Amino acid sequence: MSSELCVFEWRYGSDEMRKIFSRENFVSKFIQVEKSLLKGLVEAGFVERECVDEINKCLENIDLYKLSEDVYRLEREIGHEIAALTYLLGERCGRCGGYIHLGATSNDIIDTAWTIMIRDALEIIKRRFRQVFDKMIFYIERYKDLVMIGRTHGQHALPITLGFKFANYLYELSRSYERICDLEKRVLRGKIAGAVGTMAGWRGRGLVIEKVVMKDLGLEPHMISTQISPRDGFAELVSTFSILASQIDRFALEIRELSRTEINEIYESVERVGSSTMPHKRNPVTAERLSGLARFIRSLATAFYENIVLMHERDLSNSSFERISIPHIFMTIDQMFIDMIYLLDHLMINENAIRRNLEISRGAVMSENIMIRLVERGVPRHVAHKKLVELIREAEREGVDFKEILLRDDLVRKHLDSEEIDHLLKPESYLGSYRELIDRTIRYAKDILSRC
Amino acid sequence: MSSELCVFEWRYGSDEMRKIFSRENFVSKFIQVEKSLLKGLVEAGFVERECVDEINKCLENIDLYKLSEDVYRLEREIGHEIAALTYLLGERCGRCGGYIHLGATSNDIIDTAWTIMIRDALEIIKRRFRQVFDKMIFYIERYKDLVMIGRTHGQHALPITLGFKFANYLYELSRSYERICDLEKRVLRGKIAGAVGTMAGWRGRGLVIEKVVMKDLGLEPHMISTQISPRDGFAELVSTFSILASQIDRFALEIRELSRTEINEIYESVERVGSSTMPHKRNPVTAERLSGLARFIRSLATAFYENIVLMHERDLSNSSFERISIPHIFMTIDQMFIDMIYLLDHLMINENAIRRNLEISRGAVMSENIMIRLVERGVPRHVAHKKLVELIREAEREGVDFKEILLRDDLVRKHLDSEEIDHLLKPESYLGSYRELIDRTIRYAKDILSRC
Amino acid sequence: MSSELCVFEWRYGSDEMRKIFSRENFVSKFIQVEKSLLKGLVEAGFVERECVDEINKCLENIDLYKLSEDVYRLEREIGHEIAALTYLLGERCGRCGGYIHLGATSNDIIDTAWTIMIRDALEIIKRRFRQVFDKMIFYIERYKDLVMIGRTHGQHALPITLGFKFANYLYELSRSYERICDLEKRVLRGKIAGAVGTMAGWRGRGLVIEKVVMKDLGLEPHMISTQISPRDGFAELVSTFSILASQIDRFALEIRELSRTEINEIYESVERVGSSTMPHKRNPVTAERLSGLARFIRSLATAFYENIVLMHERDLSNSSFERISIPHIFMTIDQMFIDMIYLLDHLMINENAIRRNLEISRGAVMSENIMIRLVERGVPRHVAHKKLVELIREAEREGVDFKEILLRDDLVRKHLDSEEIDHLLKPESYLGSYRELIDRTIRYAKDILSRC
Amino acid sequence: MSSELCVFEWRYGSDEMRKIFSRENFVSKFIQVEKSLLKGLVEAGFVERECVDEINKCLENIDLYKLSEDVYRLEREIGHEIAALTYLLGERCGRCGGYIHLGATSNDIIDTAWTIMIRDALEIIKRRFRQVFDKMIFYIERYKDLVMIGRTHGQHALPITLGFKFANYLYELSRSYERICDLEKRVLRGKIAGAVGTMAGWRGRGLVIEKVVMKDLGLEPHMISTQISPRDGFAELVSTFSILASQIDRFALEIRELSRTEINEIYESVERVGSSTMPHKRNPVTAERLSGLARFIRSLATAFYENIVLMHERDLSNSSFERISIPHIFMTIDQMFIDMIYLLDHLMINENAIRRNLEISRGAVMSENIMIRLVERGVPRHVAHKKLVELIREAEREGVDFKEILLRDDLVRKHLDSEEIDHLLKPESYLGSYRELIDRTIRYAKDILSRC
Repeated sequence: MSSELCVFEWRYGSDEMRKIFSRENFVSKFIQVEKSLLKGLVEAGFVERECVDEINKCLENIDLYKLSEDVYRLEREIGHEIAALTYLLGERCGRCGGYIHLGATSNDIIDTAWTIMIRDALEIIKRRFRQVFDKMIFYIERYKDLVMIGRTHGQHALPITLGFKFANYLYELSRSYERICDLEKRVLRGKIAGAVGTMAGWRGRGLVIEKVVMKDLGLEPHMISTQISPRDGFAELVSTFSILASQIDRFALEIRELSRTEINEIYESVERVGSSTMPHKRNPVTAERLSGLARFIRSLATAFYENIVLMHERDLSNSSFERISIPHIFMTIDQMFIDMIYLLDHLMINENAIRRNLEISRGAVMSENIMIRLVERGVPRHVAHKKLVELIREAEREGVDFKEILLRDDLVRKHLDSEEIDHLLKPESYLGSYRELIDRTIRYAKDILSRC
Repeated sequence: MSSELCVFEWRYGSDEMRKIFSRENFVSKFIQVEKSLLKGLVEAGFVERECVDEINKCLENIDLYKLSEDVYRLEREIGHEIAALTYLLGERCGRCGGYIHLGATSNDIIDTAWTIMIRDALEIIKRRFRQVFDKMIFYIERYKDLVMIGRTHGQHALPITLGFKFANYLYELSRSYERICDLEKRVLRGKIAGAVGTMAGWRGRGLVIEKVVMKDLGLEPHMISTQISPRDGFAELVSTFSILASQIDRFALEIRELSRTEINEIYESVERVGSSTMPHKRNPVTAERLSGLARFIRSLATAFYENIVLMHERDLSNSSFERISIPHIFMTIDQMFIDMIYLLDHLMINENAIRRNLEISRGAVMSENIMIRLVERGVPRHVAHKKLVELIREAEREGVDFKEILLRDDLVRKHLDSEEIDHLLKPESYLGSYRELIDRTIRYAKDILSRC
Repeated sequence: MSSELCVFEWRYGSDEMRKIFSRENFVSKFIQVEKSLLKGLVEAGFVERECVDEINKCLENIDLYKLSEDVYRLEREIGHEIAALTYLLGERCGRCGGYIHLGATSNDIIDTAWTIMIRDALEIIKRRFRQVFDKMIFYIERYKDLVMIGRTHGQHALPITLGFKFANYLYELSRSYERICDLEKRVLRGKIAGAVGTMAGWRGRGLVIEKVVMKDLGLEPHMISTQISPRDGFAELVSTFSILASQIDRFALEIRELSRTEINEIYESVERVGSSTMPHKRNPVTAERLSGLARFIRSLATAFYENIVLMHERDLSNSSFERISIPHIFMTIDQMFIDMIYLLDHLMINENAIRRNLEISRGAVMSENIMIRLVERGVPRHVAHKKLVELIREAEREGVDFKEILLRDDLVRKHLDSEEIDHLLKPESYLGSYRELIDRTIRYAKDILSRC
Repeated sequence: MSSELCVFEWRYGSDEMRKIFSRENFVSKFIQVEKSLLKGLVEAGFVERECVDEINKCLENIDLYKLSEDVYRLEREIGHEIAALTYLLGERCGRCGGYIHLGATSNDIIDTAWTIMIRDALEIIKRRFRQVFDKMIFYIERYKDLVMIGRTHGQHALPITLGFKFANYLYELSRSYERICDLEKRVLRGKIAGAVGTMAGWRGRGLVIEKVVMKDLGLEPHMISTQISPRDGFAELVSTFSILASQIDRFALEIRELSRTEINEIYESVERVGSSTMPHKRNPVTAERLSGLARFIRSLATAFYENIVLMHERDLSNSSFERISIPHIFMTIDQMFIDMIYLLDHLMINENAIRRNLEISRGAVMSENIMIRLVERGVPRHVAHKKLVELIREAEREGVDFKEILLRDDLVRKHLDSEEIDHLLKPESYLGSYRELIDRTIRYAKDILSRC
């Protein structure tokens, strides 16, 4: 009976992703690589051609889940999972079984199996990415012109639109998607090179074997290797996920902040118990979880850098850490996407609150618009800047509309009349090139998506 | 059927530790805290005294494992495990069940349950610590006088003894033990203070309730809290474990290096398959795993620091991360101790190799002893230093014993005769106060162990 | 001419702290340790007593700044700063100069000098701590009863007081102060033990020398060491600072959030340019800087854990990293305290906004108070909870005062009359034991401060 | 007078790199961007064309170093460096000076200046990369066929060649170079978009200005931005450097291990003082420093991930951290390359030791070659494997040559005669496809270098 210590066994992550990194699938992928290797051994003349069929037939009759249990039971004893597997297959698959793994080293199998699992897992991730992009673009287009206040330092700054805000997230995420496309050429490589990377066990025919295996598995090989693939690949993957997770965290923080009671512009709409003692409240629990999960991923990157620093033709210190971390990281990023999609499906946009907040400053946020116009009318920039600072402070002190203060001031009045001031104080009048920027961002994101 | 994605479910860590952080035990500890709370509510006059017995009776008839499944099934729906639990108990335990959790907030229960689980887990860790100390002291005493080369920068430096080497590890580990003793007064505190920490739900009688609960559970309370305990406690715990794991990593590295083919002074003795292709080799796999596991722990510390930075009276971003990381970290440190104990039980000390390596430099490592004696005889320190550097280079160039070169030199000969040189070149003659240092270290370690 | 690449040279940190970690002070502390060592050598009979005076006299005539320049010029050549220093002193201080460093290894000097510098730096930190505590206690007492809304998940939760809020920070910081007191016994230790820690160069008299040096410098020695002090000390120090920095970050985040335009409860009052383009805005720049600086410290902890893992009797890989990081970390924590003190001196408490925000929810935040009272009147807890959830949703939907909805409800009306509801909806009526909690926290903090 | 607290001011890093991140150069790059912006403002019709020349003339007469001092003096007062700069230029450059910065926000200038500095710094890094590649290829080709023992788990495994070993490092580094090429398209982008990224200050003409500025500076723009560029760019850069630094660390570890007294195959040859007390020893101090510097870089990555998570249209918490870390990281990576190049220039290859070590196992390392041949002759793989394990243990127990044991064994003798055994025990006979692997790696590396 499982203890269910790990929340990824039952609470977080999809079944689809969980299956990829299940114990059973490890064994399944080891076997897949061993089978490709056997084809290579045939091609290179080490093994009779009929062994391919024979092994296939033998494997058809083996229950994978039971086999994986046997492998790891034996591994407890002999301390080595690939040795356990080849021993068991050797025992069960007759004469041809004896050829399995010939000339190879464990990490030919393990590292190539990792690559296959990661390729499968990245397919899920990329599919989820596309879903997120679609939903993001939906919001961007729908709220392209919904004016809201932009905030810097937590303070009201200048107006933007909600579509513009979301377009920034789309841009950031598309940069992560592009990174994944870029890293595939380094990370999705197989390794079939024997004990210290020289292919010595296959005499001069190692490159033939490598070619067959890679073709069979649809991979490129590493140009050279030690006993194992270079570990910078995993490090790049986890770095990329750390960036991605932090971008999602930023979006989550956006929602958490905008759903504050005082702001209330966007919130998660779902009905949940919320709080065991406080029946009011609409807690942004999905967004908060996203922030928490992001921390798990980004803190692990450092250990993957350390893992690069292996001795000579390899030491084993990378192994336990990878076996723990890679599945957990993929499950975490998977859950983050699940949560992100859920969040995007349950966002409530409170247009009233958005409008109301825009007016909180009673016009003061539009001061830059006034200042720029004064400069356009010939007032030196630093004079205009100083003047506006004073007028805002004055408006604040007196608690009146900014317009009232503006109208009182000689310098302002000299250059602007009441009607023009009215116009300049309208948020809509100060949105610059937001539409063009949004459009080029969507084009850019779609282009990136089409790359890999 | 479990996917067995997480290696801590079946491969790493003890059952004892796994049980503490099992899903079932979470529910069990939640119930324990709710029961203590009920006693407090009775004491404070909110609940009739007979409810304590009634609830106990009700709980006796509930299968914990099934309950934990129900709790987390309901949690899926309502998103809240404590709400799920109180709902289920309220439903199943009659009128008194309705008082469960009265006035409390979820984290009164969760954080206090964490503290109990951590206290239990630390007991295991401290027990393992004591085992490691015993084994360490065994080696220290047994090999107190076994002279070996000390190495700095990977280079032969000066002689030490094997006992002296191990005494350094004993000292380092005892500093970690002391840290655990120190942190208990900050970390092992309960929290019973209601929704925002003011105890408002219990009118003015919160401190009475807190007192009853803490006494019942054997804990001290936090002096004040928000909705949750301050998160610096977890951060300190994981920092302390990161230091401890790195110290064990250092010991593991010692063994990994000393078992190198060329050095061969100490190695893991157990028979294992070793390598799937290379039947020679005695790989230090336990030590290598220790190095890998250490990386997992120390990289996570940063996220625990981030987790301190919660908003106002709390946000939820700490929660998912803690639920993932704390069990995994305890399981990892547990496995590290298991491996450490195994390693100490299987160390082979190769005295021949130790002796052989001591003589590699043909006397040159003893040059400091010569130099000091020359200074004692009146040669200025920098003159003596320069001279010895020259003589060593000369010995190396010619490939002869250092003694031969020393005898050739006028300055040396003026102050030292052949017999004295012989004596000075003996490693045993240059071990300083190692015995006193070892003795005070053992005393110190034993004293620390008696503190908590 | 300096490039002023590093902002700690001119922008961040106090002169006082900068002086401690200046190049010149390194040399000064090296000399201090060498002088203590000389006294030890006299006591142990290696050196004539008059050398102590002679060396003191010689050193009086040396300009430290010039010497430090010479040391590091020579270090460029020979790659070794202590060798450079002893060479220069040997050259300039006559016959007795030749005894300087006799039997010692560089890290006897360097590690003991680090300890002295860290002790000095911790004195500054502790002094600043006390200033922060005083200011915190001032706010706590002044605003002990100022009712404000408590927030969880960024949502209005239940009322607290401003004094209660600040008391939580006081508690958290006092835990950090206590950690510093605890770590001093492990970190503030000197190391005088020669090349591989055996004290071999001093024959059997090393412990005499150690005793003299430690007494002279006011330190305890490490019980045992390799060539260097164990590196867990630095790791503990930086972990403790990482926790501390994150606590300050949490306070900074509190201010950043409470100064949001929509909330506006507390803000930094100082007049600054604010923004080069937006003359309105009161940006919490000091608080934001605190958050940024915290990241620098907490991310470095991992490397200090790695630094523990040195080979055998030491390797040099810790050295460059420590020389970079320790001064920068102390300068950063110093700047954080400077900023924290500045921030506390410039906080504006906007009582109007605090009051206004408290009423935003039109009573809904007080629902727990109603619920508890209903339970006290005999309504089962889960029934009351469910009821209140409904009523709040109703109030929200209709946009009316919570009281109005409560009065409409039969169940509520059965147990509570209008007057009692009025009372229960007053925030002041639901603050629990906040005064006692505040008082015991202040007592606790003062007690901690008196410990070291 | 500078305190010289920071070792990068005087000890580590090149002057060339130091200059890029000097305070003076910050100001210089700010001015460069402001000048480009002015051209854009002219193009968009905001400013008269003659202002470009006038400002150029005005700036020619300003001493940059003095100006930078003035800027940061004023910044102390007003808390804002770009405001200080524009104020000073406005004051000193007459009427046109008033147009400087019109419509822009500080981070238009700061972020674009960062990009220029990073581009310049990357040029240095790429140049150093090419030097390292050249030296690596030199070693690879020179020692292509020098047979040495390959080591896994610190144990002798199978023969490789020194050229093959170095080719692995070449491959790993070339992957980092490729990453830099890939990231440039994301990182080397400018940002000219005004206060919240909408370009509002420039009415509808912002895209014209952006185009002029980008063309003038030779950059691509970000597709969209908030007040600042997205921070994932810095994070990617530092992640990439963390990987690179860890790869160099791995090379450094290789040298540190191979220069161990017992191994002595490769070492740093330069004459240095080595150790203040131990005149023998050839410490790998350059390699050890590389390991230390790598820790500094890789631990900082986490903070850069945190820095991505900024609020809304930005908060300021990224700023102080970046200003500290980016210059220090570039200086560190610069020093690492300097050290790496120095190390490659001072490596001594001890061919005698390499040969001697190859024979330590007296043939046992060649057991895989025997095993494979037995399998080729029809012995089942697991039978052959088991047999070889026994024979090796036997040879070890008896302390005799492996060949002797082989000749004694019936199974072996049945398939192999003495001559064939002799051949199979020759390391040269078991190097597989190392030459082809080396060749394709060099081709690959050269191809990567030509990409950017």
